[in-house]
Amino acid sequence: MSSVTSSVLNYNPDGNDLVDNLLIRRLVIIGVGLIGGSLARILRKQSNGCGEIIGCGRGIVNLQTAVELGVIDRYTTDIAEAVTDADMIVVAVPLGAMAKTFAAMLPNLAPHAIVTDVGSAKSSVVADARAQLAAHLPYFVPGHPIAGTEKSGVTASFAELFQKRRVILTPLPETDPLAHAKVKKMWQLAGAEVIDMEVVHHDEVLAATSHLPHVLAYSLVDTLVKMEERAEIFRFSAGGFRDFSRIASSDPQMWHDICVANRKAVLYMIDLFNHQLQEFRVALEHEDSKTILEIFTRAKVTRDKLQEKLE
Amino acid sequence: MSSVTSSVLNYNPDGNDLVDNLLIRRLVIIGVGLIGGSLARILRKQSNGCGEIIGCGRGIVNLQTAVELGVIDRYTTDIAEAVTDADMIVVAVPLGAMAKTFAAMLPNLAPHAIVTDVGSAKSSVVADARAQLAAHLPYFVPGHPIAGTEKSGVTASFAELFQKRRVILTPLPETDPLAHAKVKKMWQLAGAEVIDMEVVHHDEVLAATSHLPHVLAYSLVDTLVKMEERAEIFRFSAGGFRDFSRIASSDPQMWHDICVANRKAVLYMIDLFNHQLQEFRVALEHEDSKTILEIFTRAKVTRDKLQEKLE
Repeated sequence: MSSVTSSVLNYNPDGNDLVDNLLIRRLVIIGVGLIGGSLARILRKQSNGCGEIIGCGRGIVNLQTAVELGVIDRYTTDIAEAVTDADMIVVAVPLGAMAKTFAAMLPNLAPHAIVTDVGSAKSSVVADARAQLAAHLPYFVPGHPIAGTEKSGVTASFAELFQKRRVILTPLPETDPLAHAKVKKMWQLAGAEVIDMEVVHHDEVLAATSHLPHVLAYSLVDTLVKMEERAEIFRFSAGGFRDFSRIASSDPQMWHDICVANRKAVLYMIDLFNHQLQEFRVALEHEDSKTILEIFTRAKVTRDKLQEKLE
Repeated sequence: MSSVTSSVLNYNPDGNDLVDNLLIRRLVIIGVGLIGGSLARILRKQSNGCGEIIGCGRGIVNLQTAVELGVIDRYTTDIAEAVTDADMIVVAVPLGAMAKTFAAMLPNLAPHAIVTDVGSAKSSVVADARAQLAAHLPYFVPGHPIAGTEKSGVTASFAELFQKRRVILTPLPETDPLAHAKVKKMWQLAGAEVIDMEVVHHDEVLAATSHLPHVLAYSLVDTLVKMEERAEIFRFSAGGFRDFSRIASSDPQMWHDICVANRKAVLYMIDLFNHQLQEFRVALEHEDSKTILEIFTRAKVTRDKLQEKLE
């Protein structure tokens, strides 16, 4: 691995002697929120992680907080300025802001500067990268850490977020193998297991395990909001409802962007789920105990197995 | 309160002197599982809680475990034998077993023995009680503790389960006020806040906040089970999915019984939810960002408010 990282790090405009000891000399995080902030925190903790960390974003208060918390060294709100002389740029902005972020950084990117992202849907990011990054495309490595909480902003970030979690990379045919290897190494340093996957397959799997559950949680809470007995309904909600609806506290703009970006797969999953729900509805309407028990039991057995694997 | 409990306790076939110090002289728990076991544990801890605790059920291993754990003093699998000379009988059996349990206990019930239940739907239990308890109906107090976990059996029970949780009682026009007061006091001793509610209203509220979420969680997991990429799908599930689907580990028979018992209200909630989900689906299909953001934001604001209240 060291030969790989050294060769990627050969591009070194500052002649900085620290280069060979660090995976990343100058890291830029565009979007210093839960994901970007947590990545900065853990890479800073690793002796061979990274040198300077520059934050970039639109919210000055959040960026100032990030400096005060020691998450980043300094910040700028100008993307072109931020990426100058950087060897690794992590784009952690909402999916709807990817294209303009890529476009803004392109003029100032160093020749072999690696760009990666953390977007929850990958087809749209790859399309944006193809459209905006031009000849720099081989140094773009699409990525998605399967980690997060319902909270947002740098104050919610913590160094352990990626510990034992999975990060999916969806490299393109054009992707430079060394760029791919360096991004993989970065996430391993953050404590994650890194897996490669096809772009389309990633979007199908995540639509099922993450995007659909969020749509259901938002829709459930909104269903109850619209019921007359609102106050009382929430007053009598128990632990099950609270766990189930926790993800409805997630950032609306972020999840809007994810659903729109992965629209086709999310629509497919909504239809598949609805088909399943209607199957249950028919069984309940006809008091078809056999079918109801089959559905519940199959789900319980699967969920229990999943829990065992996690423990 | 003491005058109420004393007067209820005036029926005292044993002439036991302890009577005036204890809310319940002889407690019978039919169904010593998570709920029944936890209630026994906490009442035993309270100096003025109860004297002897007799467990009753079908699973001898579970009952023996309950004795070993000190949750109950002794047990019998015969309902008629169990209730003899009891002053409080808590029926914690699945909803589908209520009618036959009531029928089995009736011949041996002491004249003023109080019967209460912990069923998650109340219309069906009340119908069963009306059909089976005959002249004893005034001493039946329908109840529902809004507490629980996805686990089952006496080994999952713990004394703190009802601490700061709500217990809903749905007394009938015929219900004896002293019986009602004594059941209320029992749950207060268990640490709960006790609220009275109309039977039908209870079932509507619980269909929305508890039964529908369980149906959605079971249906979501079953949807994923049926997808081809099964193994990989669960491999990439993150925290959101795990929280969301935790309640799909709940006991299938218990939830079958709840859904069937509260069929009308659950079907209504499935349709209401489906209407909401289709509204979202149409918005997503047309990339109607305004509507998507409205739904997500309204849900987040409501969920955050609920969380604040709970903290």
